[in-house]
Amino acid sequence: MPNAYIDGPKIESVEIKRALVKEVTDAMEKAYKFPRQAYVVTITENPSENVGVGGELIADRRKK
Amino acid sequence: MPNAYIDGPKIESVEIKRALVKEVTDAMEKAYKFPRQAYVVTITENPSENVGVGGELIADRRKK
Amino acid sequence: MPNAYIDGPKIESVEIKRALVKEVTDAMEKAYKFPRQAYVVTITENPSENVGVGGELIADRRKK
Amino acid sequence: MPNAYIDGPKIESVEIKRALVKEVTDAMEKAYKFPRQAYVVTITENPSENVGVGGELIADRRKK
Amino acid sequence: MPNAYIDGPKIESVEIKRALVKEVTDAMEKAYKFPRQAYVVTITENPSENVGVGGELIADRRKK
Amino acid sequence: MPNAYIDGPKIESVEIKRALVKEVTDAMEKAYKFPRQAYVVTITENPSENVGVGGELIADRRKK
Repeated sequence: MPNAYIDGPKIESVEIKRALVKEVTDAMEKAYKFPRQAYVVTITENPSENVGVGGELIADRRKK
Repeated sequence: MPNAYIDGPKIESVEIKRALVKEVTDAMEKAYKFPRQAYVVTITENPSENVGVGGELIADRRKK
Repeated sequence: MPNAYIDGPKIESVEIKRALVKEVTDAMEKAYKFPRQAYVVTITENPSENVGVGGELIADRRKK
Repeated sequence: MPNAYIDGPKIESVEIKRALVKEVTDAMEKAYKFPRQAYVVTITENPSENVGVGGELIADRRKK
Repeated sequence: MPNAYIDGPKIESVEIKRALVKEVTDAMEKAYKFPRQAYVVTITENPSENVGVGGELIADRRKK
Repeated sequence: MPNAYIDGPKIESVEIKRALVKEVTDAMEKAYKFPRQAYVVTITENPSENVGVGGELIADRRKK
């Protein structure tokens, strides 16, 4: 704690996850000033048929 | 934003997810009056051995 | 369970919350077919200085 | 409702999940005094490459 | 991390919150076997007009 | 969507929230490559008597 939860689509590579976790932690560290070990960042990757934007599944949008 | 997160068991078909996302978006649109593209609905499907109701795993209840 | 969490800005009236909870429950009931008492809908109202869209606080956008 | 969401790494066995759900429900029951059927506990198991502690992926830490 | 999020109605006293946090942490410690300092428990207290059970606001149920 | 939820203690100033939202959005934009308007960052500020670390309320720790 503090904790960040990041919700989005699949992320292709571990490199991208590594950078995302590092940079979000950097941003939180500036804001809260706790010891770095306190910050937890959790990434959730959601299948495109489980997320809707504007009332429409992302899986359906991509087909158009 | 606004965002809805819906947590439940597995949903069998994409048709059901499509209708759920559409109808929840309709309900939010009436409440908040933002442009429709603003609404995000995320469905999370949880394995029955990861959810407990009344202190008991759903996976265990089904066996009875 | 199933549970819906709805995150958005302040909602002005209880009437709007009442309708939102009812309609989201209706949508979930069609999708999951559990007894109606199983569904829980939780609305979270966020202050405009705690939400950013496109990297900018909603509180700042409104001033423009 | 009340609902507990527990986020952590993979849990090896159903026995551990069963005990976790039971004990968290016991703790909530003492705090809120609702009928036991009201409590829902959901466990989320996160892959080690999706969680960062101290700005570093758990998947990377383990390799060291 | 592991983190527990507990969502419910208002809790009257700090004593109850103290016991809830301790007992949920005890349960997680048995399940995950991390050092005790790793566990974070966050309690969210929701106004009764922001939660619906069975499609009806808790605030409305209480009036009946 | 993608959405980030950041959970922590109270943040003293709007300036800090503004920077936090901007920098977390920057980090997400690099990871996901969506149009900037798609990203939503929500900060939740939790009272110190509602968060426990290591089984102990933060409110209690501070008194020591």
